[in-house]
Amino acid sequence: VPERLGPARASPLFDKIALIGLGLIGSSLAHVARRQNLAKEVAGFDTDADVRKRARDLRLAVIAESAEEAARGADLVILCVPVGAMGDAACAVAPQLKRGAILSDVGSVKSGVVASVAPHIPEGVHFIPAHPVSGTEYSGPEAGFATLFLQRWCILTPSEGADENAVAKLTGFWEAAGSHVEVMSAAHHDLVLAITSHVPHLIAYNIVGTAADLEEVTQSEVIKFSAGGFRDFTRIAASDPTMWRDVFLHNKDAVLEMLGRFNEDLSALQRMIRWGDGDGLFDLFSRTRAIRRGIIAEGQETAAADFGRHIGEENGPASG
Amino acid sequence: VPERLGPARASPLFDKIALIGLGLIGSSLAHVARRQNLAKEVAGFDTDADVRKRARDLRLAVIAESAEEAARGADLVILCVPVGAMGDAACAVAPQLKRGAILSDVGSVKSGVVASVAPHIPEGVHFIPAHPVSGTEYSGPEAGFATLFLQRWCILTPSEGADENAVAKLTGFWEAAGSHVEVMSAAHHDLVLAITSHVPHLIAYNIVGTAADLEEVTQSEVIKFSAGGFRDFTRIAASDPTMWRDVFLHNKDAVLEMLGRFNEDLSALQRMIRWGDGDGLFDLFSRTRAIRRGIIAEGQETAAADFGRHIGEENGPASG
Repeated sequence: VPERLGPARASPLFDKIALIGLGLIGSSLAHVARRQNLAKEVAGFDTDADVRKRARDLRLAVIAESAEEAARGADLVILCVPVGAMGDAACAVAPQLKRGAILSDVGSVKSGVVASVAPHIPEGVHFIPAHPVSGTEYSGPEAGFATLFLQRWCILTPSEGADENAVAKLTGFWEAAGSHVEVMSAAHHDLVLAITSHVPHLIAYNIVGTAADLEEVTQSEVIKFSAGGFRDFTRIAASDPTMWRDVFLHNKDAVLEMLGRFNEDLSALQRMIRWGDGDGLFDLFSRTRAIRRGIIAEGQETAAADFGRHIGEENGPASG
Repeated sequence: VPERLGPARASPLFDKIALIGLGLIGSSLAHVARRQNLAKEVAGFDTDADVRKRARDLRLAVIAESAEEAARGADLVILCVPVGAMGDAACAVAPQLKRGAILSDVGSVKSGVVASVAPHIPEGVHFIPAHPVSGTEYSGPEAGFATLFLQRWCILTPSEGADENAVAKLTGFWEAAGSHVEVMSAAHHDLVLAITSHVPHLIAYNIVGTAADLEEVTQSEVIKFSAGGFRDFTRIAASDPTMWRDVFLHNKDAVLEMLGRFNEDLSALQRMIRWGDGDGLFDLFSRTRAIRRGIIAEGQETAAADFGRHIGEENGPASG
């Protein structure tokens, strides 16, 4: 299991990469592109002038004053904006794209992005949607770092008949960034992510909201006694509000479908508690441990106990 | 903010402490009691012979062959067993308790424990229920470590008219273990923990169960793409099944009350998604960030980004 990025490439994969949007993902791509020598030139743009200024101060990339300028002459353009802004971003860069260039994105929803981006793609440009399944709870150009994608999965959802060379080239890009790459349909992606990411975020936001609105328990008590489990939900519920609003608006069907199943199962669990069905509770609670073991075995998580402070080996066993 | 335990006490607080139950909490208490010189003698017992053997091999404490033997002559007995086993444990140790001794526990539910333990308490023995709000997802005698309680809250729920000296002495014990101590009623404790701990665990168990049962998404996909948020729920859903079954069976009313509120709020959120209420979603998603900031400010969590691997500074910014 590699814990660090490999050596930088001897020769760059692309002449010019343009990153449209410089939040956590865009800025992390800028870091890894430079570190791994993925392009001769990395250009960047963000619609927020303050973000552009901060990105310049951080020397993330060559920061342009428009999406058009950033994309001009690029052979890879990656849209790193919230899902709801993908259509506008594609519209802005499309006229600059040369024949054979690849346009991609990093949106957490794929069918919705395809629907809003595809109409803008010029003849001869390859649109290969992508979603790196990685992140932290932080946003903005300062949040990025080169190893964000290391050992994480990046899902590509090329349409049927997409150019194979373009898919291979984008696969090479993400692998050089440290990721594993998997290809699936946009529709299947949206279903998989609904259960592994979107609904978990929704219920985390929801319980933090519920806790904030109680009359019998004060906010200060919720904060003090959060180490009992609640704390971990607040981390997820601290993610970028704009990004997540757009995810739910653009993956409505799959989210409502998975939420329906979650609710059914929760009702069954609620009934077990009401009627004192200890065996039913115990069975479920035992079954869920197996999935955890799979995640640790697959390298998507460490086995180290997590209790909110990673401040030195004195504070817990290396593994349990 | 202290990140380490202070120096050990010059003189022990108790002559003999008995720990009944040697799982994560009992074994951590054994470690910290020795490390901080909290007692001249630490005795331990577990109903599971294999656990007793492992605890002996680990030299956790003087391991007895019965609860009675462990408790004999102790001036502090702490029941560290699942909530459903507290009554039996109290019944076993009660005849050994001398006048002035303190009996306490570490159960995550307090009203239910008081109801099952109180009838066994002999005249002149002080029963002071306690709940250290700390833990990891690991169980068993190997899982314990001395700093588990460091900078965490321990809630005491003495009944009205409880002996003030006994409460002060137990407070001193938990403070010497590194905890902050708060006193409240058992009923209020159960409500606070229902929202900060019990319902979060319930919905974590629930979504992991939902994900395990899908037909359209394979278990291998759930595991691979868990870094999108699901992973954090599996950690919580890997907690000890017996302990959690007992929590839900013994804090039924408060859990059902808080779950009702959670469900109401989730229905409202579901409706926002169905009807495309982006402003409503954005408002909630922004509001929940404030609670996160409170938890970090209170020292119950680090600000460091968490994305499943704490393997060195190369892998992320120190703070975001």
